[in-house]
Amino acid sequence: MIQIFVTGGTFDKEYNFVTGQLYFHDSNLPEMLDRGRCTLDVNVRTLMMVDSLDLTDMDRENIAHNCRGVETKQILITHGTDTMQRTAEFLAGADIKGKTIVITGAMIPYAFGSSSDGFFNLGSALAFVQTLPPGVYVAMNGRYFPWDGVQKNLSTGYFESV
Amino acid sequence: MIQIFVTGGTFDKEYNFVTGQLYFHDSNLPEMLDRGRCTLDVNVRTLMMVDSLDLTDMDRENIAHNCRGVETKQILITHGTDTMQRTAEFLAGADIKGKTIVITGAMIPYAFGSSSDGFFNLGSALAFVQTLPPGVYVAMNGRYFPWDGVQKNLSTGYFESV
Amino acid sequence: MIQIFVTGGTFDKEYNFVTGQLYFHDSNLPEMLDRGRCTLDVNVRTLMMVDSLDLTDMDRENIAHNCRGVETKQILITHGTDTMQRTAEFLAGADIKGKTIVITGAMIPYAFGSSSDGFFNLGSALAFVQTLPPGVYVAMNGRYFPWDGVQKNLSTGYFESV
Amino acid sequence: MIQIFVTGGTFDKEYNFVTGQLYFHDSNLPEMLDRGRCTLDVNVRTLMMVDSLDLTDMDRENIAHNCRGVETKQILITHGTDTMQRTAEFLAGADIKGKTIVITGAMIPYAFGSSSDGFFNLGSALAFVQTLPPGVYVAMNGRYFPWDGVQKNLSTGYFESV
Repeated sequence: MIQIFVTGGTFDKEYNFVTGQLYFHDSNLPEMLDRGRCTLDVNVRTLMMVDSLDLTDMDRENIAHNCRGVETKQILITHGTDTMQRTAEFLAGADIKGKTIVITGAMIPYAFGSSSDGFFNLGSALAFVQTLPPGVYVAMNGRYFPWDGVQKNLSTGYFESV
Repeated sequence: MIQIFVTGGTFDKEYNFVTGQLYFHDSNLPEMLDRGRCTLDVNVRTLMMVDSLDLTDMDRENIAHNCRGVETKQILITHGTDTMQRTAEFLAGADIKGKTIVITGAMIPYAFGSSSDGFFNLGSALAFVQTLPPGVYVAMNGRYFPWDGVQKNLSTGYFESV
Repeated sequence: MIQIFVTGGTFDKEYNFVTGQLYFHDSNLPEMLDRGRCTLDVNVRTLMMVDSLDLTDMDRENIAHNCRGVETKQILITHGTDTMQRTAEFLAGADIKGKTIVITGAMIPYAFGSSSDGFFNLGSALAFVQTLPPGVYVAMNGRYFPWDGVQKNLSTGYFESV
Repeated sequence: MIQIFVTGGTFDKEYNFVTGQLYFHDSNLPEMLDRGRCTLDVNVRTLMMVDSLDLTDMDRENIAHNCRGVETKQILITHGTDTMQRTAEFLAGADIKGKTIVITGAMIPYAFGSSSDGFFNLGSALAFVQTLPPGVYVAMNGRYFPWDGVQKNLSTGYFESV
């Protein structure tokens, strides 16, 4: 079984046509798994719905607590891209043994249709979580990065090895 | 480097509005990699553009020949879903040593927009080709199957372990 | 009140991923009116779901009968493009008095997403049916054509004045 | 000939994936006309690219000046929805004789794909500008409103008669 934890981020943002602002409604994960015709045994649970710039270490401890609490060894986390690396680092130091944790997200909301990278990222993250050895990883741009070997290039929006 | 071979299939079908028929134009792969913001070192080459029901063993030998000919050890093949398993079996017996070959496709053309599974499948196949040991695999429905352990359920369109 | 009669055509075709064929399921009209945030008083009724090449004069008499039967003076008909002109001609000779009848359709199914012209055509047809004097018209390509002044160019798929 | 003046608004907003903000790039009008398979004689000119809350009466005088300057009697203006009524009122008092001016927009950016009302609104506005008598109108929600008989309901986002 694969556990998916939803934490928010651009991946799940929607457009509020009354205010003209981006906001969080429900996660798009169930619809995406359906459209991807996914037959994996997956459990989806929303832990929070926040912009990753607003994510605190208390939130990260909440995520870590949930990672420790589930029996499965395969965990996928959807997350805003801005602090993905910080959360990966936090989880790597959170005493979670023998689990493969893959963090992914999107640069363009899934709800924005044919320009979003989210559906592609979800496909790759689900594959990585099934095949990578235990550890904490970031999956973006078709690649995976170990938690201590990745940074987001803030001017281009691409993830790079460090 | 990852070599992608395009062979056609539903993945790349388009709608001809004059005739009302589905047909092949150019592959959507380059656009899809772009949209996925993919930064992998990828080479895309179209070997053929055919419905997989029309694929002959001569075509399969052509694919095998190209798999043997490239230096890279990571090969992704886009392919119609109807004979995916047959091509996987053919390649498994084609004396291709030490390479990870992942065959993927789509049940709904990428060009048909928000209902297509193609973009998700491409993401997962790219991840599997980077992480699975040498061998021939089919990647569909978020899963990977070894060449000798997969069949397409013709009434549901889902792939199953055998 | 505007009466919409659905008769099928490319407008409402869907892709069957098991057979790879186009087919008719339910009409997309209600969803399209919703997405268009349409606040007109509209009644949608499906009369038939057929490819317009298969439409017989008995089917056309059925359409005419329904046009005569409704009280409203504004009628929009969604229809396959191949015999749109023939149906317009039939309705013009069907003794329907004092009503504005606008026939529209699509060259690419609405279900095929961001390439379809259907949503645009629906918007223009709804506007034409509110503003044109009684008569029978075809609305395609942003234009309206009187029933006796239009033909479909079969090689380009565009409608032209004759 | 139909003159289209682009002034910005939600209609043409795009998502900047680096900053996470909405912004204006080029207008989507040419692509939309293409997708709508529009064969009308249309001229598109961008006058400004602004959020309509930022539109000043000097901007409105600029729009009026351009409306007076073109020879055609059919003018369509794309515009943000928040001050559409104010601009309609301004143009009605701007001494523009014998022209049909239709102002339209969108509640959800066209670039956001399958949820946007923009493509439908464009279709209806193009039809209204061809068929309504001289005057200034707002076209939204499938309807047209005279400049002095419309208001936007700020809590629902729908336009209403007054």
